[in-house]
Amino acid sequence: MTNLGLPQPYLLFLGDTTCVPDAKTAFGLRDWARERCIGEYALPASTVTTGLPLLTPAQARAKGARSLVIGVAPVGGVIAAAWVPALVEALEVGLDLVSGMHTKLEDVPQLSSAAARLGRRLINIRQPPTNLPVGTGRKRSGKRLLTVGTDCALGKKYTALTLTREFKKRGVDADFRATGQTGILIAGGGLPIDSVVVDFVAGAAETLSPDAAPNHWDVVEGQGSVFHPSYSGVSLGLLHGTQPDVIVMCHEVGREWVLDLEDYPTPSVPEAIELTLTLARRTNRQVRCAGLSLNTSMLDEAQARTILAEYSGQLHLPVADPLRGGPELDRLVEACLSGCPT
Amino acid sequence: MTNLGLPQPYLLFLGDTTCVPDAKTAFGLRDWARERCIGEYALPASTVTTGLPLLTPAQARAKGARSLVIGVAPVGGVIAAAWVPALVEALEVGLDLVSGMHTKLEDVPQLSSAAARLGRRLINIRQPPTNLPVGTGRKRSGKRLLTVGTDCALGKKYTALTLTREFKKRGVDADFRATGQTGILIAGGGLPIDSVVVDFVAGAAETLSPDAAPNHWDVVEGQGSVFHPSYSGVSLGLLHGTQPDVIVMCHEVGREWVLDLEDYPTPSVPEAIELTLTLARRTNRQVRCAGLSLNTSMLDEAQARTILAEYSGQLHLPVADPLRGGPELDRLVEACLSGCPT
Repeated sequence: MTNLGLPQPYLLFLGDTTCVPDAKTAFGLRDWARERCIGEYALPASTVTTGLPLLTPAQARAKGARSLVIGVAPVGGVIAAAWVPALVEALEVGLDLVSGMHTKLEDVPQLSSAAARLGRRLINIRQPPTNLPVGTGRKRSGKRLLTVGTDCALGKKYTALTLTREFKKRGVDADFRATGQTGILIAGGGLPIDSVVVDFVAGAAETLSPDAAPNHWDVVEGQGSVFHPSYSGVSLGLLHGTQPDVIVMCHEVGREWVLDLEDYPTPSVPEAIELTLTLARRTNRQVRCAGLSLNTSMLDEAQARTILAEYSGQLHLPVADPLRGGPELDRLVEACLSGCPT
Repeated sequence: MTNLGLPQPYLLFLGDTTCVPDAKTAFGLRDWARERCIGEYALPASTVTTGLPLLTPAQARAKGARSLVIGVAPVGGVIAAAWVPALVEALEVGLDLVSGMHTKLEDVPQLSSAAARLGRRLINIRQPPTNLPVGTGRKRSGKRLLTVGTDCALGKKYTALTLTREFKKRGVDADFRATGQTGILIAGGGLPIDSVVVDFVAGAAETLSPDAAPNHWDVVEGQGSVFHPSYSGVSLGLLHGTQPDVIVMCHEVGREWVLDLEDYPTPSVPEAIELTLTLARRTNRQVRCAGLSLNTSMLDEAQARTILAEYSGQLHLPVADPLRGGPELDRLVEACLSGCPT
């Protein structure tokens, strides 16, 4: 949770990706740490762009970049062989490497030897601290909000960042608690929950949001979904360990199937809220769902406002798209804080 | 999943434990691999015994023991400093060390130096294979049974071992799939599911029970409980990855509170069955609960038969204590296999 002292500003590396959701680290940094991003660099096969200036490592270095951040995260979190020449090139021109992949940078022989030869740093932000405790379920002081979801990669981090910003605007003492590589890069600290040994995952979540002042809020970045056949263990350990007072469900309009998996429909929003609350009550009997964060990035403004109102009418809960703001977001924020004196 | 080639027979080490459930590895080996256990060794502070002959490492070595197995597993899985002199003593007299703890044996300097000096092996069965895949949720061929529970340490392994034995007696092609250190020591293979990085826990469960012949059964040893505030992530990842056709709920008479945790009641058996089935349907819509395995070890025979009948009447399901056998067990086994041609 300490500041990681990452070398900034960053050059964002997109690899050879053709899948926008896989590049969520790059987009997250563009949106929430724009002032610390010099540009992007991609292999010719990539079809994705953040819209930042396209720069070679040498050009980025000349403009002041101090590290290349791997901004893509394919399933499994492995450093692709096709990326290695570009990563070595970055080291050659004077950039350190920052990675949120499961594979450690130094486990790629070309990278470890180039870094050693050039005196560059290889920084793996997905390595959790050692000696994490087993969860205890003990009730902690302070308040906690966890963003949860119907699937991966549909807005849990953006929702948590937005809610933290809005809480602070209203004078509420709040901290964003990062649980994934992008959040950690943005916040400069956190805990990569999906890289923890599963016996310690609830304990890691407990460590991430420790005892605090009664009116302090930890706004914890959720991961995955308890409905996700690959990652439900991450989501449930995080849910039980966080012991949230409030959950905010996150969904994307039109996301009818789980990302990258055949044959798995996303749950309906009411079904997702009900099961998540049932599970969450195990460690906090007072937990409530404040509302829905709906990713409407596929829609135009008028369509988006209409569908937010439709969902809100059906759920009898505030429904907002954090990236669009507006009165819907105000209502969601107020519902999160409702009954809780600031 | 390969045979681990463990040096046998074993001397079972009980450390300084005063808690019978913590010694479940030693009791499991006594009960399911008796012919491979020479005796037990305990520090003076220990109040627990398996009933096997109490032997020093030197005496055990003289009787043919080839390794000392750490037979206790306190919360967190750490090798206690108080055990180290006894473990070094075992190495000195010619025994290898086998451990299912989270701490690696070689991470204890006195053990790594003694083993190196004496040419002894340090075997850590709780180290999962590297390069486990992320779960896919893909439907696999063959049949799977998973033992699940209201808590830890109340009979999931014994139930799976007993059901495997009973399936085989009835001519059913079945394999016991071990997920914990004791099961792995008994079976000579398996996968220590609680030591896997949480992102890969469902994938590990998928790897453990691969595609098989249509009438083949994998009987998978469950871990923890989806209600356990510390370990629910293990349990849900294992449940989703196993995609069981049948679950058998496991409970202990009188276990009203979660082991080692204050303030957490165990769920009722119907509540546990309902929530576990709700979660399990995500990866196998046909999953059903065949019945309840009830640990009645605290009761005498007459009391036990009475309470088995009471639970069965309330649940409208077969209820058996695997260690007592009898017609109740036959009914539970038949319910597991019901509708499934052998």
